[in-house]
Amino acid sequence: MSESLRIGIAGLGTVGVGVLKLLQRNSGELAETGMREIKVCAVCARDRGKNRDVDISGYEWFDDPIDLARHEGIDVLVELIGGEEGPAKDSVVASLKSAKHVVTANKALLAHHASELSSLAEANGVALNFEAAVAGGIPIVKAMRESLIGNHISRVYGILNGTCNYILTRMQQEGRAFADILQEAQDAGYAEADPTFDIGGHDTAHKLSLLTTLAFGTQTSFESIYLEGIESISLADIEAADDLGYRIKLLGVALETESGIEQRVHPTMVEKHSAIAEVDGVSNCVAVDGDFVGDVMLIGMGAGSGPTASSVVGDIVDIARGNILPPLARPAKTLRPYERARMRAHAGGYYVRLSVVDRPGAFAAIATRMAEQEISLKSIVQRPPHDQLGGMATNKPTKKPMPVVMITHETTEAAIQQAFSLIEEDGHVLEKPQMIRIEKL
Amino acid sequence: MSESLRIGIAGLGTVGVGVLKLLQRNSGELAETGMREIKVCAVCARDRGKNRDVDISGYEWFDDPIDLARHEGIDVLVELIGGEEGPAKDSVVASLKSAKHVVTANKALLAHHASELSSLAEANGVALNFEAAVAGGIPIVKAMRESLIGNHISRVYGILNGTCNYILTRMQQEGRAFADILQEAQDAGYAEADPTFDIGGHDTAHKLSLLTTLAFGTQTSFESIYLEGIESISLADIEAADDLGYRIKLLGVALETESGIEQRVHPTMVEKHSAIAEVDGVSNCVAVDGDFVGDVMLIGMGAGSGPTASSVVGDIVDIARGNILPPLARPAKTLRPYERARMRAHAGGYYVRLSVVDRPGAFAAIATRMAEQEISLKSIVQRPPHDQLGGMATNKPTKKPMPVVMITHETTEAAIQQAFSLIEEDGHVLEKPQMIRIEKL
Repeated sequence: MSESLRIGIAGLGTVGVGVLKLLQRNSGELAETGMREIKVCAVCARDRGKNRDVDISGYEWFDDPIDLARHEGIDVLVELIGGEEGPAKDSVVASLKSAKHVVTANKALLAHHASELSSLAEANGVALNFEAAVAGGIPIVKAMRESLIGNHISRVYGILNGTCNYILTRMQQEGRAFADILQEAQDAGYAEADPTFDIGGHDTAHKLSLLTTLAFGTQTSFESIYLEGIESISLADIEAADDLGYRIKLLGVALETESGIEQRVHPTMVEKHSAIAEVDGVSNCVAVDGDFVGDVMLIGMGAGSGPTASSVVGDIVDIARGNILPPLARPAKTLRPYERARMRAHAGGYYVRLSVVDRPGAFAAIATRMAEQEISLKSIVQRPPHDQLGGMATNKPTKKPMPVVMITHETTEAAIQQAFSLIEEDGHVLEKPQMIRIEKL
Repeated sequence: MSESLRIGIAGLGTVGVGVLKLLQRNSGELAETGMREIKVCAVCARDRGKNRDVDISGYEWFDDPIDLARHEGIDVLVELIGGEEGPAKDSVVASLKSAKHVVTANKALLAHHASELSSLAEANGVALNFEAAVAGGIPIVKAMRESLIGNHISRVYGILNGTCNYILTRMQQEGRAFADILQEAQDAGYAEADPTFDIGGHDTAHKLSLLTTLAFGTQTSFESIYLEGIESISLADIEAADDLGYRIKLLGVALETESGIEQRVHPTMVEKHSAIAEVDGVSNCVAVDGDFVGDVMLIGMGAGSGPTASSVVGDIVDIARGNILPPLARPAKTLRPYERARMRAHAGGYYVRLSVVDRPGAFAAIATRMAEQEISLKSIVQRPPHDQLGGMATNKPTKKPMPVVMITHETTEAAIQQAFSLIEEDGHVLEKPQMIRIEKL
């Protein structure tokens, strides 16, 4: 393995530039640890003339990523174009078909085509490495594909989207509303102009679908993921969670149940005194529960030029060293079909916030509805919003709705939903009930 | 690679039994992910007849681990005997010299002989994998050797001993003294009858020396580690730390300085609101600061049968898959000599607890000594111990010493030590000053 490994990079955005900088800066070290020279030979992007803060004059230029993918002068295509179809997919397919290795940071592509592309890589005896596609700089793909491979995994979960975590953290720390913080995050470039993809949970779901496949050996099934974003989280929820000893995080969770694999993305209450509750701002984390290893958690930066480049280069070094594995940890043809668990049967504790009409008997009626569904309550907090404390002091019923917050013991999704619909029918609440699932760590 | 990989296990204590259980229970899965059958063929221990809660009748028995190491019927020796010399070392050397791979959980052996054994493994073209030797089930060796290899590492640190962390956590949570908790931990089997090796920091130092080599590409230098255990930590320290917003953890820390690599093991103050502060009980963690990836932290179980077996089997699967790397991430002959940093020059903040004679001017004299060394103070807490609160309320000087706790801004070890010796000479303190280093996360 003394010949140099020749790299072609398609896509020179922030990650592509990060990869070039890393390879230029640490090249001496990498020749030693990678056991041979890692040499960027060619690059490809939409605009050759763009100022990129990195010298690309020494690399052969391609206008078309598919031409680059088929170029005889490279051994590895690094795909950093993005998108689930189009030039990203076409160039990856062309590269694998030409028996060239692929390293990619493209979660959308893999969430939709992981099995197909893995089969293609295996058939051509090449690598399809994607550490950077899941949680940026956190080395979770390798941990699951290699380190923890002896374990039977029962659950994998994590904070997989930095934008959501940044918004939730700032709401909590500064006591400010969702819309305010989102606006600031957009102004500062931490959130996209159209933030739906992040705050609606789609980005988290892309990553979760890959973690599910690595954890359970099932085919990727992005469409089966239950999806709920953070748009509905109000400051009242954040404050009530704090009072009750919790933090709210957007989690992606996949776990084994009797009826199949449950995959869900939703705001989640986690205990305040836990490592995951301290994963703040744009940081990400992934936790794995294995039968022998127990619980393992990895924390780090989930996005950004540097962390993503770190993962891309780790994947390249694997190829330089000759560590070529089936992309999804086992031969793609041995992946089992994904069987979706019945989400309505999901069991766990729930946080419930109701906007109750402030009149005698309202709360009793609500409590009765919960009891009918055999939902038992762990704690109840009934307190006026901050701006009504004056009214509270006089003990007179106020005109505004009274927020009531409850934490339930373990119950099922079906029971909660049934109780909600009866409570709404009874007319004792003024808004749709808010419900946040509690995840046991 | 369709032939089965033949394993010989030397040492059938709690870890050896865990490895056998894992290989027996998850063997079907492992044949798929490991790409060939992993087959235990032979075992070796001191007492063949011992009841082990696992069936070993199907394996060839060896009385002598060196005979097992040289046995033609195995491809991999799993060394779980322990100890830095003796049969552990002899069998590992014999195995490597017979061109058989080695997987070991033996931190003492590697802390003292990593370079020599790695050279031997490389010369014979075989693996020497030791994931289980550092932080049990946490996949930090692979993360550093492979995933993060593109980074220039500036610091690695962690909670590397479960016994110490268990004692410190219970002191904090239950407000009880060190000796009490240690006794209970010994009774429960969490601490050895002679706990010196754990609570004195030696075990942490063994693991740290390997992390240092992986992080900085230097030869292992266990002897150079500055070592301070947790014996001196009193409940007063734990409580003062809590008041000031910190937790006390025994950390191993290795970092790059201008004068070389600094390696130290000592009780450390970490901010209460951080993930590392929430690493409680017998859990371990390791954090790495890299120039591209930023800060990455891995948390999990640092010891025990299951977690250690998980790492051992991960190492075996690597061999089954043909991923054979230089044990220390780069060829052993390219490791640089270890250059020790001048510890006295260590810069950082400090927690200081003094037992001050309760008379006018004592505190002023102490503050002057600190100022002379250009140590500036971030916070000062002067409060009577819990049993003297009555004295405080009357504002009269008490007869007992007054504890004074200070947090300094960044200063040097030399300045602190100089200030302490002058304060002691002045006669204003009744005990040796307590000092705990603060680690910036």
